Amino acid sequence: MKLGSLKGGRDGRLVVVSDDLVWCVSAETICPTLQAAIENWELIEPRLLDLSLALEAGTIERSRFDDQAVSSPLPRAYQWADGSAYVNHVALVRQARSAAMPESFWHDPLMYQGGSDAFLGPRDPIPLADECWGCDMEAEIVVVTNDVPMGIDPYAARDHIILVGLTNDVSLRGLIPDELAKGFGFFQSKPASAFSPVFVTPDALGPMWRDGKLHGILEVDLNGAPLGRANAGIDMTFDFGRLISHAAKTRNLAAGTIIGSGTVSNRDVDGGPGKPIAQGGLGYSCLAEVRTVETIIHGRPLTPFMRSGDRVRIAMNGPDGRSIFGAIEQSVA
Amino acid sequence: MKLGSLKGGRDGRLVVVSDDLVWCVSAETICPTLQAAIENWELIEPRLLDLSLALEAGTIERSRFDDQAVSSPLPRAYQWADGSAYVNHVALVRQARSAAMPESFWHDPLMYQGGSDAFLGPRDPIPLADECWGCDMEAEIVVVTNDVPMGIDPYAARDHIILVGLTNDVSLRGLIPDELAKGFGFFQSKPASAFSPVFVTPDALGPMWRDGKLHGILEVDLNGAPLGRANAGIDMTFDFGRLISHAAKTRNLAAGTIIGSGTVSNRDVDGGPGKPIAQGGLGYSCLAEVRTVETIIHGRPLTPFMRSGDRVRIAMNGPDGRSIFGAIEQSVA
Repeated sequence: MKLGSLKGGRDGRLVVVSDDLVWCVSAETICPTLQAAIENWELIEPRLLDLSLALEAGTIERSRFDDQAVSSPLPRAYQWADGSAYVNHVALVRQARSAAMPESFWHDPLMYQGGSDAFLGPRDPIPLADECWGCDMEAEIVVVTNDVPMGIDPYAARDHIILVGLTNDVSLRGLIPDELAKGFGFFQSKPASAFSPVFVTPDALGPMWRDGKLHGILEVDLNGAPLGRANAGIDMTFDFGRLISHAAKTRNLAAGTIIGSGTVSNRDVDGGPGKPIAQGGLGYSCLAEVRTVETIIHGRPLTPFMRSGDRVRIAMNGPDGRSIFGAIEQSVA
Repeated sequence: MKLGSLKGGRDGRLVVVSDDLVWCVSAETICPTLQAAIENWELIEPRLLDLSLALEAGTIERSRFDDQAVSSPLPRAYQWADGSAYVNHVALVRQARSAAMPESFWHDPLMYQGGSDAFLGPRDPIPLADECWGCDMEAEIVVVTNDVPMGIDPYAARDHIILVGLTNDVSLRGLIPDELAKGFGFFQSKPASAFSPVFVTPDALGPMWRDGKLHGILEVDLNGAPLGRANAGIDMTFDFGRLISHAAKTRNLAAGTIIGSGTVSNRDVDGGPGKPIAQGGLGYSCLAEVRTVETIIHGRPLTPFMRSGDRVRIAMNGPDGRSIFGAIEQSVA
């Protein structure tokens, strides 16, 4: 089942979307918003599923799903906790600045608390007041949980995943060094993120969803050219169950919590940093990694961060070649 | 005007509370929840104010306000951003571990993104799975904002403050060093916070609310003995307008955003670290500061962190000696 939210109010208006993303039907008679549905998931999901089956069968009135006009499926959330599960990415970034990576990073996940009060829609421009802030995309996988009890173990945590999607976790690289040096983590350097037009239930992902990971090629394009084609199921050191368990170590997580994977990143086949797609590699899911690899090879970064008018596209296709989540397509404004 | 939320559902049930905190009246016919009221504040506030006036005049049916049975006024929020505006506190903590404090800390606020998906109520126990985590209270002032545009200046930001309250920002000191060393800020070390039984509009605070600060003695008691009596209006390096402006540098803040002051802390009259109340000082608003001062004086901390059964009380009285916000009273469970 695929769910989205048409723009409207602070929480959008819940729609069930067809598997091919062409059609949708309002679910407001069942539940007004996705957040409300998640809070009563056991009761609401079967009813949404009935609607989804009717939509696929063509037995109810349907509308075109205009993915230009949608908000993120959760236009805002009570929690957005973003991990950094592709430790390869972290190791690369540290290598570029000659910083040793603690061995603990391979068994203790990194995670930061993100702002969740107002997300961007998947086609909304990225508001950037100053190009010197170093605007970057971070293409990631996300999951949404129901209520998770404190202290849950990583394996049991997987059963609390009710939806899967994509995000562009916009980052302002120019503000990160000073902010991290202060020791309190990201704040100004992480403005509003955007999410894919639809979130999808794990069962609808078939064999692509297994072991608490999403196994598929994450397509990242910059200004129409392929930038990244990494497989999100590979080199993910911590699966989503592990990330949820980490987040829930000292507190409960409330229904509607969004957990992010961190920037998807694959090693090159030779074990080294990934190569650009033009050189036969799998490319990169953020510009910081491009610049990191350039620094390792050339001694300095060559690729600039995003500037006004630059366009990023993030999507993933299923085995049938069709888009699963719809595309995040944003320009810098 | 004073507002609270009776326990009920994930967002509580909005009540208007009398100035003396003895009576309340349901506001659900006007607006079901405080979050919903904040989102339509210009429309809803005048109607709540009418109800408040009728409550004070005794012209409507009223109930006893049972502050044992309330949730935090916002039982959950879309954003909880906590500053560290009493730089004196930061300087002390760093002094105790012989870490130089960057000069920039005096003009660039520290702020972290806190978890906001499920707050504790003001009388809820603090769930602590392991005493080794070093459970500490942090007594702070908070404000709630309406919608704040990105890039707002500190002075204009003050006009976006619609409610004022207190918090116990529970901290797990034993988990902080490792977490901060990872560079991504607090996560596991900041479990759910609790807030005062009521939030109060700035105008109802009279002269205690001025210059974007709350001028009053923050009473912090541990197991019935006075621990802290610092004045929240003194030594606050960054007023709430400045903190809001900091938070809004790269993004809008949505209505219902809670901004915290960080642990309230006053220097001693001689300019040095604060003395215990038993020695005629103003005491401390968290145990970390007690232990810091002990380390400076005795070479090591003497006071333990909170253990099972320990009780913390946080409150503030007005010039008439009556409690303004009600008391946060929590035991470690």
